[in-house]
Amino acid sequence: MPRLTSLKSLYRLSSRSSSFLPAANVIPSSSFQWGQRHTRSVETMASSKLKAAEHLKGLEGSVWVEFVKLTTEEKAINLGQGFPDFAPPNSVTQALTEILAPGSNPLMNQYTRSYGHARLVNAIAAMYSKFIGREVDPMTGVLVSVGAYGSLYYAINSHVNPGDEVIIIEPFFDCYEPMVRMARGVPRFIPLRPKNEGVTSTRDFYLDKEELKGLFNKKTKAIIVNNPNNPLGKIFSEEELTVIADLCKEHDVMCISDEVYEHLVYSGNKFTRMASLPGMWDRTITVCSAGKIFSATGWKLGWSIGPQHLIKNSQTLHQNCVYNCPTLIQEAVARGLELEFSRLGQPECYFLELPRELEEKRNKMEKVLKESSFIPIIPEGGYFMMAKYGHLGVDVSAYGDGPQDYKMVRYLTKTQGVATIPCSAFYSAEHKSLGEPYIRFCFIKEDCTIDKAAEKLKAFSKSLKA
Amino acid sequence: MPRLTSLKSLYRLSSRSSSFLPAANVIPSSSFQWGQRHTRSVETMASSKLKAAEHLKGLEGSVWVEFVKLTTEEKAINLGQGFPDFAPPNSVTQALTEILAPGSNPLMNQYTRSYGHARLVNAIAAMYSKFIGREVDPMTGVLVSVGAYGSLYYAINSHVNPGDEVIIIEPFFDCYEPMVRMARGVPRFIPLRPKNEGVTSTRDFYLDKEELKGLFNKKTKAIIVNNPNNPLGKIFSEEELTVIADLCKEHDVMCISDEVYEHLVYSGNKFTRMASLPGMWDRTITVCSAGKIFSATGWKLGWSIGPQHLIKNSQTLHQNCVYNCPTLIQEAVARGLELEFSRLGQPECYFLELPRELEEKRNKMEKVLKESSFIPIIPEGGYFMMAKYGHLGVDVSAYGDGPQDYKMVRYLTKTQGVATIPCSAFYSAEHKSLGEPYIRFCFIKEDCTIDKAAEKLKAFSKSLKA
Repeated sequence: MPRLTSLKSLYRLSSRSSSFLPAANVIPSSSFQWGQRHTRSVETMASSKLKAAEHLKGLEGSVWVEFVKLTTEEKAINLGQGFPDFAPPNSVTQALTEILAPGSNPLMNQYTRSYGHARLVNAIAAMYSKFIGREVDPMTGVLVSVGAYGSLYYAINSHVNPGDEVIIIEPFFDCYEPMVRMARGVPRFIPLRPKNEGVTSTRDFYLDKEELKGLFNKKTKAIIVNNPNNPLGKIFSEEELTVIADLCKEHDVMCISDEVYEHLVYSGNKFTRMASLPGMWDRTITVCSAGKIFSATGWKLGWSIGPQHLIKNSQTLHQNCVYNCPTLIQEAVARGLELEFSRLGQPECYFLELPRELEEKRNKMEKVLKESSFIPIIPEGGYFMMAKYGHLGVDVSAYGDGPQDYKMVRYLTKTQGVATIPCSAFYSAEHKSLGEPYIRFCFIKEDCTIDKAAEKLKAFSKSLKA
Repeated sequence: MPRLTSLKSLYRLSSRSSSFLPAANVIPSSSFQWGQRHTRSVETMASSKLKAAEHLKGLEGSVWVEFVKLTTEEKAINLGQGFPDFAPPNSVTQALTEILAPGSNPLMNQYTRSYGHARLVNAIAAMYSKFIGREVDPMTGVLVSVGAYGSLYYAINSHVNPGDEVIIIEPFFDCYEPMVRMARGVPRFIPLRPKNEGVTSTRDFYLDKEELKGLFNKKTKAIIVNNPNNPLGKIFSEEELTVIADLCKEHDVMCISDEVYEHLVYSGNKFTRMASLPGMWDRTITVCSAGKIFSATGWKLGWSIGPQHLIKNSQTLHQNCVYNCPTLIQEAVARGLELEFSRLGQPECYFLELPRELEEKRNKMEKVLKESSFIPIIPEGGYFMMAKYGHLGVDVSAYGDGPQDYKMVRYLTKTQGVATIPCSAFYSAEHKSLGEPYIRFCFIKEDCTIDKAAEKLKAFSKSLKA
């Protein structure tokens, strides 16, 4: 084997922040001359069998890949991707530290039960039995997954056959569409529509009942409901959910209810769980996220809850996909849930503390955006705020290809140092124009982060008027 | 919502070991009477659309689900599932503790780059550039996954189209077959055959060249090679790998090389990487495991390494399946790899320390099994030992259904308190009889664990002779 003299120079230790950066060209090609071992690339790729499977076609792109990279490259203030820039609560970080302490049980570093660590599924079942108002069986009614993302993938891929239709409400968390397409299913889209041009609250976005009814047919396998919704922040009323539920029962359709923002509900709003509606338990998979509950998106732990006849299908896929999730993270989240559940309803319970803090951040963000001449849509839940920018009249034509909102986001990131996410990414090709007038601001950030962004946005607004 | 008076009683806090137990019936059904909310089960399931997707059919079973449960229920000494019962090395546990320490970077708890945390992919690329003997690009040539399991799923599911054939060498890590079937592919099996009846070393198991050649055809998309092999512990020689490589090149077939036991190579044996053979880099995805490298199977972190034209397909599936892996675990593993890589070739390097310790455990296990009248097949690598039991003449007919080895494992677990794994689980339906004479012992265990098992096994052997 040739000696690798240049390895040390390749071995750039990343600094605190650059660890998250796709460090392009870390390894200079010129330093490698392997001679006989360095064979040609497969030059016959056009005719080679070494190709992606058909079901992945057209799914290579991701709005996150472009904008996470851009944010890091520009060192912009990150109001883009949805994650907090503060630490998770002690209830979970302290637990994880104890699990790792010298002398603690070494088996916490080894495999645990495939469908979920027993202490965790017990904690989940006890908690959601109360939340949903019916028995949740920890062994047959819960599946722990790699983030809510994993649960969504399982719910879709373990039920959708080629040609099955899946209804998706727009705007939608962007992975729903590729997940349906990978299962060779057919996504059918229906947008939440604003009641009029001048709406300023997510309460004024509605689902058209007749339009929704028109999408249900014999091929409809599932509908995906994200409540509270990302990126809009709308909370569906019990009445709205009942319309969906009735159609599901009439047409024998399952519901994948993505409820990851379950606790992030602001004053005056009521969150209803789809699985708690009459007749819906038996046809609903509820998807939740420890990352969202505990402000620890990088822990990548989530779960599915539902009846055995649905959860078992997700379990089958899970056991043949990743088999199980990290034991130590599951144990820490279990201890955290136990603690918070014991505080339920008390002000120090993190399920109440976080939305209390976030409601202030939401109000702060609203103020900042209004003072910077954006027109925000005030969310009832979640931690995102969509805002209109078109009336500002900024010329963004030089900022790449694609819809206006993509250009606006690139413009803001590059020239103002504030990163956001374009909302047309959350709409299907046929409805992109509905999302194009908006960009999304994430407000689960330290106050000082929002303040820094505020300074930049206000200066930007002032410069436009000058 | 009805009051849930019985929740406290459901909320059984698990003890140290029972956390891993599927605690059946934690919630007594009788305590739940939800009245109107407790709707009937979907009684029309036979005609309902709420069914698993076709590609999951027949894949519900798992040898692990039965035997992990049995082991825990019987509180047996666990020589079954492949994980150490000792702590991972300081190089990773210390790193993780530091990442969690108060005042450390809170972003370590949040999302990182989808295809792999930058510090980790840099560490992997630098290390495997040396190991494979050619440039590995950290951004386009590496994908971090949820265990090696996740990488295997991606490699298969992102390349295999319905009807494509995938060659699997028996005995095989049991997930290969369902993964191929889920992709709607067709597994084609070829067993490693013992040279004669009395072989006692894995060196005497061989691949029949003509038999292998006969499996390659136009439909062949991939071959999966597990080297060192689980459960056998065979290390393929460069000559054997070259036979496979030549057929791959001749028939334009990709190779999925599962090399998770890469460092567990015992004296007198040489491990060769498939991707280092001439012309194979361009058609090989190498699958590795931090869990195996660092004795931390419960950390569930692994990676794929390969050329961009293959890795990008796995990346596309990954970004639409779980999107990314836990940041803090990736950071800790990155720091661990950096440290061990800096010690490469030195006796304190964990890559050498672990196999040194394991070779002693292998020898110990060989002695124990021989003294207990089993006939072990001595492995060249890995941490499993297959052993024959048929000549002992134990009547196991009362121990459930299925092949003899399943019954023998149930018998040993229930009556002797020693858990193992039946080897026919690692063979296809057509070749189960080849695995049936063997059960698998895992020897990556504390010496005291092996000693306790030894006592029981010797007493068992003695009782047979009495």
